[in-house]
Amino acid sequence: MSFSPLIDDLIESLRCLPGVGRKSAQRMALHILERNREGGAVLAHSLKLALEQVGRCEKCRTHSETPQCRMCSQANRNTATLCIVETPADVLAIEQGAGYKGLYFVLMGHLSPMDGIGPKELGLDELISRISDESISEVIIATNPTIEGDATAHFIHQMIDKQLDTQLISVTRIAHGVPIGGELEYVDGGTLAHAFAGRKSYT
Amino acid sequence: MSFSPLIDDLIESLRCLPGVGRKSAQRMALHILERNREGGAVLAHSLKLALEQVGRCEKCRTHSETPQCRMCSQANRNTATLCIVETPADVLAIEQGAGYKGLYFVLMGHLSPMDGIGPKELGLDELISRISDESISEVIIATNPTIEGDATAHFIHQMIDKQLDTQLISVTRIAHGVPIGGELEYVDGGTLAHAFAGRKSYT
Repeated sequence: MSFSPLIDDLIESLRCLPGVGRKSAQRMALHILERNREGGAVLAHSLKLALEQVGRCEKCRTHSETPQCRMCSQANRNTATLCIVETPADVLAIEQGAGYKGLYFVLMGHLSPMDGIGPKELGLDELISRISDESISEVIIATNPTIEGDATAHFIHQMIDKQLDTQLISVTRIAHGVPIGGELEYVDGGTLAHAFAGRKSYT
Repeated sequence: MSFSPLIDDLIESLRCLPGVGRKSAQRMALHILERNREGGAVLAHSLKLALEQVGRCEKCRTHSETPQCRMCSQANRNTATLCIVETPADVLAIEQGAGYKGLYFVLMGHLSPMDGIGPKELGLDELISRISDESISEVIIATNPTIEGDATAHFIHQMIDKQLDTQLISVTRIAHGVPIGGELEYVDGGTLAHAFAGRKSYT
C-alpha cells in the first residue's frame, strides 16, 4: 500500500539525497506537500537552475557557474601558492578557517584504481602544467589524512618531483596531529603517532 | 565565504526539508552536483509535478492527484466504518499494518487554537455531514495519543454526540497500552496507566 503515484515518485526521488532513507523521504515529501509548498517550489527551481548552470571552474576545477570561480578571479590572492584539495567542500572549510590566501586546485576525488579514478580523472596533467605556467613557488597538498588521500598526496609529490624543477618549487603537506581543543585521552593512535613524529622544537 | 550564488541558493532551499540544517544541506547539494546529477534532475521534476498536481481527496481530505484518493475509490471497502486520523502518514501506517478495511477521514492536523487551527480548518463540518450522508455506523477516532490528539478526539466525540443520532452510530477510540514487543520495564508511566485502565477480562 502506498500514496498516489506522484507522491510515491517524489518519495523515491528524494532518496537520491545522501543519508535519506525511505522513512525520511516520506517525511520530507509529506512535509513539503502539507506545510511548505512554497519552499518545495523554490527547491525544485533552484535545483534545476544549479544543475543547468553550475559547471567546473576552468582553472581550479571546483564548482562554478562562471568560467572562473570566485577564488580564482579574486584580485588580492597570493598567486604563487597553490593548495591541492580533494573536494569543493574542502575549499570552503579552508576558506572559512585557515587564513589561507593562495589559489586552489580541486581534484574532485582521490586516486582509486578500483573505481577507475586515475591521474587523468583527477586532472593531474592540468595540475602540472598549471604549476609550471603560473610559476607557482609553493604547492601545499591538503588531501584528507586517509589511506587514499595520503596515497594521492604521495603520487602528486612524486609527479612534481619528476616533471618539474623542484629547486624553484617547494612541495608541502599540511600538518597532522592532535586537533585544537581535543583531549589526548580521546585521540586515536594514528593521530597521536603523527603528532609525535611531527613534533617541533621550541626555538 | 561561500560557493557560487546558485549553489548557495540550492543549499538554502534544501533547508526547507525537515531535519536538514546548513551542513546537511551543503552535503546534499555537493553530492547531487558531484555524483548524482541525474537523480537531482529527477528530483526537481517530480517535486514540480507533485506540487502542481497533488491536491486533496474530495472525500477524505488526504493527498491525492485524482478527485478521489485510492482508498476512497476502492470497491471492496467497508463503507459503514470511518476512521479519523490526523495525517496522511497515519493512513499509510494503518493501511500497512492494522488490517482495517473501512474508510478514512484525514483532519490534516489537530485542534490548536494558538496556531489558528479550529474545527473549521480540520473540516469537522464536512465530517459530520459525511457521517450522516453516508450512513456510517462506526466512527473510529485514531488521532495521536498526545494532549492535542486526545483533545481533538474528545471534541469530535462531543460534536457527534450533539449533532447526530448516537443510537445509530457507535463512536470508538483506538486502544492505548503497552506496544507489542515492548518491555514493561521501559514503558512510560502514562502508557502503563492507560494499559491498566483499559485492561480486559479473559472471558
